[in-house]
Amino acid sequence: VKVSELGEFGLIELINNIIDRSKNLEYSSWRKLVIGIGDDVAVWKGDNSLQLLTTDCLIENVHFDPGIVTWAELGWKAIAVNISDIAAMGGIPAYALVSLALPGEMEVDCISQLYQGMVSLCDQHQVAIVGGNISSSDKTMITITLLGSLKGKSMLTRSEAKTGDLIAITGYTGLSAAGLHMLKQGLCCDADSRRILREAHLKPVARVTEGLVLLQYGVKTAIDISDGLISDLIHICKASHVGALIEQRLVPVHPVLQTYFKHDYQRFILAGGEDYELLFTAPGRIVEKLKKILSCPITIIGKVIGDIPGEVRVLDYNGEYRTLKEFGWEHFKSKI
Amino acid sequence: VKVSELGEFGLIELINNIIDRSKNLEYSSWRKLVIGIGDDVAVWKGDNSLQLLTTDCLIENVHFDPGIVTWAELGWKAIAVNISDIAAMGGIPAYALVSLALPGEMEVDCISQLYQGMVSLCDQHQVAIVGGNISSSDKTMITITLLGSLKGKSMLTRSEAKTGDLIAITGYTGLSAAGLHMLKQGLCCDADSRRILREAHLKPVARVTEGLVLLQYGVKTAIDISDGLISDLIHICKASHVGALIEQRLVPVHPVLQTYFKHDYQRFILAGGEDYELLFTAPGRIVEKLKKILSCPITIIGKVIGDIPGEVRVLDYNGEYRTLKEFGWEHFKSKI
Repeated sequence: VKVSELGEFGLIELINNIIDRSKNLEYSSWRKLVIGIGDDVAVWKGDNSLQLLTTDCLIENVHFDPGIVTWAELGWKAIAVNISDIAAMGGIPAYALVSLALPGEMEVDCISQLYQGMVSLCDQHQVAIVGGNISSSDKTMITITLLGSLKGKSMLTRSEAKTGDLIAITGYTGLSAAGLHMLKQGLCCDADSRRILREAHLKPVARVTEGLVLLQYGVKTAIDISDGLISDLIHICKASHVGALIEQRLVPVHPVLQTYFKHDYQRFILAGGEDYELLFTAPGRIVEKLKKILSCPITIIGKVIGDIPGEVRVLDYNGEYRTLKEFGWEHFKSKI
Repeated sequence: VKVSELGEFGLIELINNIIDRSKNLEYSSWRKLVIGIGDDVAVWKGDNSLQLLTTDCLIENVHFDPGIVTWAELGWKAIAVNISDIAAMGGIPAYALVSLALPGEMEVDCISQLYQGMVSLCDQHQVAIVGGNISSSDKTMITITLLGSLKGKSMLTRSEAKTGDLIAITGYTGLSAAGLHMLKQGLCCDADSRRILREAHLKPVARVTEGLVLLQYGVKTAIDISDGLISDLIHICKASHVGALIEQRLVPVHPVLQTYFKHDYQRFILAGGEDYELLFTAPGRIVEKLKKILSCPITIIGKVIGDIPGEVRVLDYNGEYRTLKEFGWEHFKSKI
């Protein structure tokens, strides 16, 4: 059955059914909900906590290629990238709106799978999908808005990095970009590596628990790596009016990248983007504590420096300092 | 200057400047704001009120034609349609996120005008624009998310219409659809009428004050007329499990429609859509009170009936009851 045959209201009913089945009253988001899908707006009981609101958008042929991603993966990813923004503040996600634009000739079954993907990740994070809207469009586009909150008064921002702080990351970067490369260009590799690369790109895991722990142990500055390690570090440097020094030899390289991308993994690791790991800065003693407490890898990759505010310098494998320009860094003007 | 020349981050800076100039700390939305544009998410101080969240999307060549709308009008309308959803609950809007998808070859000046349009309406309603995101895309697309709240514990929903309630509307319907007709097909009419029709379609006014008064005087059921008078009445009937009877002779006709659309204004009035007036049901004594108190026209157009749940019947000018099918009603399946 095609979307145009089912019609707007039939589609809303179908979506409502999928979400209704996912409803779990053990989650406070669902318990506090007064009105979900089906009225002019979603309504829930507020509280005095600090509120967090974010939105992100996936557009066909810009952010995803329908030829290489399943609809369930796409649904998952659309939610994951937004949860990651909440995680980067040390917050807890709660409510999501889904704004869909799609062509009438799309199969209704694709929409079901898309929502199954969203719902499966929302369930893991106790997020309730409470509304949205549907428009017709030539190309598919998924805009998610996510509301969350903070437990206490403190949060992780981009603007508190201090000279002398160490710079660290959770997990590995570059796998998502390498995964995209594999999906688009093909790559001869073992099944496990294929799975790791595909999931890194299409089923990213937002570091919500890690964000909470960072906050709890006194970290003040963090960002999720969506634009790329260096690019997001520049965001922190600009917002904090500091500089950063990265040692190339310290940046962790996942075994799959070492095996299958021997000659170009540096590009993926430093500039790949869509990793959704947390990049943070903190005094050394805090980072050392976090390395012991967190189950995911925490790697120190450099330090915050007072000179060159707003800039990042890289110490390469040959022990030479290089500016990003010398490093072949492409500016982001090409992005739009 | 084109968007692609300025780049994503240059564009964010430009937008940030426009919004920063609109900041008004006399508004509680700005006062409670902790972090606006420039971090992973927007952050503000929450409270115990009922929270309202809605989203709506305008897509080039689906919802608007860039040949007939100015960018400032488009910005206004994108915000207005969302404020209207909050108004239809009897709520007060507070925070907006703007998700933009746009082609790189667009002029930066268009984006400035778009935000000027948004900011001018936001200012009227004391709404703070606190974030969003920008993607590249073939076609322009504006997705707004709006968060608001209720003053008390009650709200206007679609599901409380009772048999015997009168059905009433604020203002006039059909002007927006007639305005679109004028803009697309041309129409020979005086300057005042041109302005009324253009503004009805491109600079709609959300009935926030009226929604608050409705709630205050005990109205329980309302919807904003976005799909069209009859279509939105069906939404109420379905959600409330009641039927509705509309008397065609009671539905108000704006003088401009009577003058310039003598032969087809009925279609615009009953099915036009995008009017953003409030359609509500309430006992007669409440509606009579509202007619005296509100400065906008309040017109009784029919009543809620117990039989035909989920359906609307129209008593035509000849005194004959007609089902919507007989009335030439087109189903919405064509919409997607």
